[in-house]
Amino acid sequence: MNAPTQIDTSAEDLMANAIRALSMDAVQAANSGHPGAPMGTADIAAVLFNRFMKIDPSADKWADRDRFVMSAGHGSMLVYAINHLLGYDDMDMDQLRNFRQMGYRTAGHPEYGHAKGIEVTTGPLGQGFSAAVGMALAERMHNARFGDDLVDHYTYVIAGDGCLMEGVSHEVIDFAGHHGLGRLIVLWDDNQITIDGSTDVSTSMNQKMRFEAAGWHVQSVDGHDKEAVAAAIEAARAVTDKPSMIACRTIIGFGAPNKQGTHDVHGAPLGDEEIAAARKALDWPHEPFTVPQDVYDAWHAVSARGRAAREAWEARLAANAGKEAFETSMADPDAATLDAAIDAYKAKLSADAPKVATRKASQMALEVINTTLPNTAGGSADLTGSNLTKTGGMRDVTAADFSGDYIRYGVREHGMNAIMNGIALHGGFIPYGGTFLIFADYGRGAIRLAALMGIRVIYVLTHDSIGLGEDGPTHQPVEVLASYRAMPNLNVFRPADVVETAEAWQAALGMKATPSMLSLSRQNLPCLRTAHVTENMVAKGAYVLREADGARDVTLIGTGSEVEIAMKAADLLAQSGIKAAVISAPCFELFAAQDDAYKASVLGDAPRVGVEAAIEQGWAPLLGQNSAFVGMTSFGASAPAGDLYKHFGITAEAVADAAKNLIK
Amino acid sequence: MNAPTQIDTSAEDLMANAIRALSMDAVQAANSGHPGAPMGTADIAAVLFNRFMKIDPSADKWADRDRFVMSAGHGSMLVYAINHLLGYDDMDMDQLRNFRQMGYRTAGHPEYGHAKGIEVTTGPLGQGFSAAVGMALAERMHNARFGDDLVDHYTYVIAGDGCLMEGVSHEVIDFAGHHGLGRLIVLWDDNQITIDGSTDVSTSMNQKMRFEAAGWHVQSVDGHDKEAVAAAIEAARAVTDKPSMIACRTIIGFGAPNKQGTHDVHGAPLGDEEIAAARKALDWPHEPFTVPQDVYDAWHAVSARGRAAREAWEARLAANAGKEAFETSMADPDAATLDAAIDAYKAKLSADAPKVATRKASQMALEVINTTLPNTAGGSADLTGSNLTKTGGMRDVTAADFSGDYIRYGVREHGMNAIMNGIALHGGFIPYGGTFLIFADYGRGAIRLAALMGIRVIYVLTHDSIGLGEDGPTHQPVEVLASYRAMPNLNVFRPADVVETAEAWQAALGMKATPSMLSLSRQNLPCLRTAHVTENMVAKGAYVLREADGARDVTLIGTGSEVEIAMKAADLLAQSGIKAAVISAPCFELFAAQDDAYKASVLGDAPRVGVEAAIEQGWAPLLGQNSAFVGMTSFGASAPAGDLYKHFGITAEAVADAAKNLIK
Repeated sequence: MNAPTQIDTSAEDLMANAIRALSMDAVQAANSGHPGAPMGTADIAAVLFNRFMKIDPSADKWADRDRFVMSAGHGSMLVYAINHLLGYDDMDMDQLRNFRQMGYRTAGHPEYGHAKGIEVTTGPLGQGFSAAVGMALAERMHNARFGDDLVDHYTYVIAGDGCLMEGVSHEVIDFAGHHGLGRLIVLWDDNQITIDGSTDVSTSMNQKMRFEAAGWHVQSVDGHDKEAVAAAIEAARAVTDKPSMIACRTIIGFGAPNKQGTHDVHGAPLGDEEIAAARKALDWPHEPFTVPQDVYDAWHAVSARGRAAREAWEARLAANAGKEAFETSMADPDAATLDAAIDAYKAKLSADAPKVATRKASQMALEVINTTLPNTAGGSADLTGSNLTKTGGMRDVTAADFSGDYIRYGVREHGMNAIMNGIALHGGFIPYGGTFLIFADYGRGAIRLAALMGIRVIYVLTHDSIGLGEDGPTHQPVEVLASYRAMPNLNVFRPADVVETAEAWQAALGMKATPSMLSLSRQNLPCLRTAHVTENMVAKGAYVLREADGARDVTLIGTGSEVEIAMKAADLLAQSGIKAAVISAPCFELFAAQDDAYKASVLGDAPRVGVEAAIEQGWAPLLGQNSAFVGMTSFGASAPAGDLYKHFGITAEAVADAAKNLIK
Repeated sequence: MNAPTQIDTSAEDLMANAIRALSMDAVQAANSGHPGAPMGTADIAAVLFNRFMKIDPSADKWADRDRFVMSAGHGSMLVYAINHLLGYDDMDMDQLRNFRQMGYRTAGHPEYGHAKGIEVTTGPLGQGFSAAVGMALAERMHNARFGDDLVDHYTYVIAGDGCLMEGVSHEVIDFAGHHGLGRLIVLWDDNQITIDGSTDVSTSMNQKMRFEAAGWHVQSVDGHDKEAVAAAIEAARAVTDKPSMIACRTIIGFGAPNKQGTHDVHGAPLGDEEIAAARKALDWPHEPFTVPQDVYDAWHAVSARGRAAREAWEARLAANAGKEAFETSMADPDAATLDAAIDAYKAKLSADAPKVATRKASQMALEVINTTLPNTAGGSADLTGSNLTKTGGMRDVTAADFSGDYIRYGVREHGMNAIMNGIALHGGFIPYGGTFLIFADYGRGAIRLAALMGIRVIYVLTHDSIGLGEDGPTHQPVEVLASYRAMPNLNVFRPADVVETAEAWQAALGMKATPSMLSLSRQNLPCLRTAHVTENMVAKGAYVLREADGARDVTLIGTGSEVEIAMKAADLLAQSGIKAAVISAPCFELFAAQDDAYKASVLGDAPRVGVEAAIEQGWAPLLGQNSAFVGMTSFGASAPAGDLYKHFGITAEAVADAAKNLIK
């Protein structure tokens, strides 16, 4: 335990005012930014860091550090000021002077990976809070495996009114309460101000009662009374079976004598005059971007305490029987072991050639993966039996027992995705979670952050087209594939059969800095890959599944459930003496990354027909000038899947006809 | 008031069992669907309709009808059974026999527009509830304008556990409580079952406390005790200053003796054996799809009561001084009046040529529109001063005074979009609402439903590219335009200047069955349309903004803030003796709808260069074989806007260079 003993609290006013001064000065220099939140929460942060936080800036990735999440990400200067004062070696004063400028680490909102000590990218409201729930969950899950000696840390969050108004907050508050995440402590910056003015304009929520309804431990304090804040954090830490929310009544922009407490300080520089007045009011006579050594000393004491804790932890790790397993859990998956397992599994598949839905194929692949890798953490947003995300040996993670590896996310797609971000960022686990492909939309905000941060999160998205049938257009994605292919740094896999599904999982697990989506069918699909190859063909993005019998007259390109249609179309064309090659294109992004020679060898020179039960947008790089596309041009309909494919004209006959029209 | 007097309640058991029987039989016939919810909520529905609902199936669009929303849309058979029993003329037994089949109105989930009496498309959880909040808000706003004689109805919702777990429910619960929507009554189908099993698996929420925290009136009843349900609805109606939630404890699949109360009845047919057992248990000896006349009679009495109420209302309307204004509010906007106002406004703009951000241009256009049309209802998700959605005379809608026309949606993008769906569906207002373009993602689920339903909702989405500058990549859309261009039946407008912004608004307001997005810049843009034309050029999707001086060597195509760059590139090319035309393409969807001759006249035969500060996906139809694109290929960065455009190479020079490369 990192109990706060013998800590010098006498400098906390100065520690807080250093944050305020740096924040207002940096925003002024940038002529852009948000001084209100860092100035309002500076006292809370000073107490939290000085008395509680366990971090070592010289080992920023130390596994057992406390996590600090500034969920109100527009208050990024709080993070940069703190990290500068703590002595992170990549956050010198030059970074603060160049807040929000090209090439500096001090982006407008905290960006994970841009600088040390930023645990998660925040800014889109609610995301930091939600990721923190994932971190706190991962901490308990990791603790259940490796014990208090190795895993024993807190996740602290500063959240604003906006974070608590966003819907995703509801999802994760319920989830955190249900799972009794006692190591999660949320400090609500209760400043009663949003951009449109007083919070009275748009909310009457009794936040305390709301958190209590979700099973949280709740307290209220004056956010500028440091002893009260400290006592509340102490009390929150003492409650180990419930997450804690501390409502900290603050004054936004505290210290700016004429503007504080108004929305004028939220998102604009204070101006030279008000900054001068604030310097007087705060008794902070120092030049901009100047911090006295005694203030640095006070902050550095936090770092020194963390360093000592980290060194003690390392000694414990060295002596721990679980050392190797612990390090394995924190490392990338063992590619050689996984590859061998997948290869053997693929060989068997190609021999057996089972006809299964790719959602079932995904579960079959997961049986191999979850047996091979020690630290996958599965789950579903209340669609376990539909997504087929749970495998044989998996046990539910519960408040009573965190040693399981399957998470019941509830009907909470956005929360699930954000929690998975937190699990991935925490380390120790590789998270995957399922829902229907259409409901990726509900959680898109968190998917975008995974792509932006470059983290390994895997989305298992089943029921991926009109092929789901009767549930109808509300449930049938037609534009969803295109909408995610548009997103940078996200791989969208749409495997065609049981073998490709195994390869898609293999490829996704190998993506250290890119999240992956698996788009999977509800309906059964034949095994097309009956000749075993060790090479991961899906990882090439697209490949020749069946070459033409001689020079190609036409190239047919399909994805997922429509590759079967392309194969049948090739058969039909053969009956007319037309030589068609069939390309399976399970991942457009990985194909785009291949070299030109490979691309040309796959696509060939013949006219091309693409087929996918979705809209055409995004297919341009695969189709050439003389090409056609067979797919959707509208929303779907409610009917049995076979009827829908016929109704919308996505058939082998239609593909063959399109090919003939091109060749004529 | 539609007070429930002298109502025969003796047949309510039969009324409910008719719903149960039709639901289990239809699901069985389809071999697909969800019997559990309709069977579990049949008693609630029987009481609600028999004693309270004011609807007239012979006038399904009657403005003052009560609204019934089955938010748990998978329970669609409840709606179809009720509407059949009430005697809607498009819901004969053949529709029920062909539940979930091609070409029938009885889709897997209730689809607005497919059949009378479906107030909103539901299925994606939380959407019906949220739209109902919009309906209840619109009712009060309309009431504030036209009085109790013309506007006096309730919005009733049946919501499931999933609806209450989804984040959007939090947003609209807070909103509804804050606005004191006393005419909203939510019946929670508290069956303690979700797809993954008992709700205990994933939630510990005290829903009653949660609603109370948001200022709701809350009650609990046995959902199978009809008198208790009726008394609770009575009590809820009596509370006029708070929305009401009635927790109805139910048994999912009530009546199926062996499967009820388990998740087995949620989403699968009961099977012939269990259906036979249920017929016995319910004492419902009738053949499948057979309803005795006395049960029809009981249901038809509801319709008769509604018809009488409607006729009385029509008499009141005929005598009401506000008749014309009322009918105007319910009708499409007066195009002639609007067109004249916009034409005069455009003429002035072209003469004055103001350089303003298109978000400011949007506010300027709204000043004209909100003065011209009587029933726009504006709002923003807490970004009023950034989205510039509020115009001169607008007043906030508040719990104390619903006569205003500006809605403070709070930091609730998903809730805002869903509430706007409800406002549009209710009628009386044309809703528009603002946020940053990037946060369209948060509310995408509701936007998709607007597109699917085909309703007029207008999204004001500012800060639409890296041009927003310092806020950085979390706030900079690069893939968002493409992701929405992929969605069927949604117009994405990206106007280039103040004139195009006015035209985009004019076009969007004219779209009766298509929602529209306006993608608007944070940064100032010059007026490019300095020669006035009455014709709405934006409505053509793309048009020749500047023809080349002679035969085109190259065609430059831009959208929004990048049209200025294309114009400058054309100037640069002219210096090299290269003749470039400049095409402004503010709406790809409307351009795609033009005839081939027009498209050819705009695009021409010369090589083409597209420029947009976004990714290329979606541009293929505008670019030809010999083409280039200047835009984004990654997420953005945090820096001043000018630096970002240079850094990412989106400049006039880059466009000119790309053109020269094509011509070589």
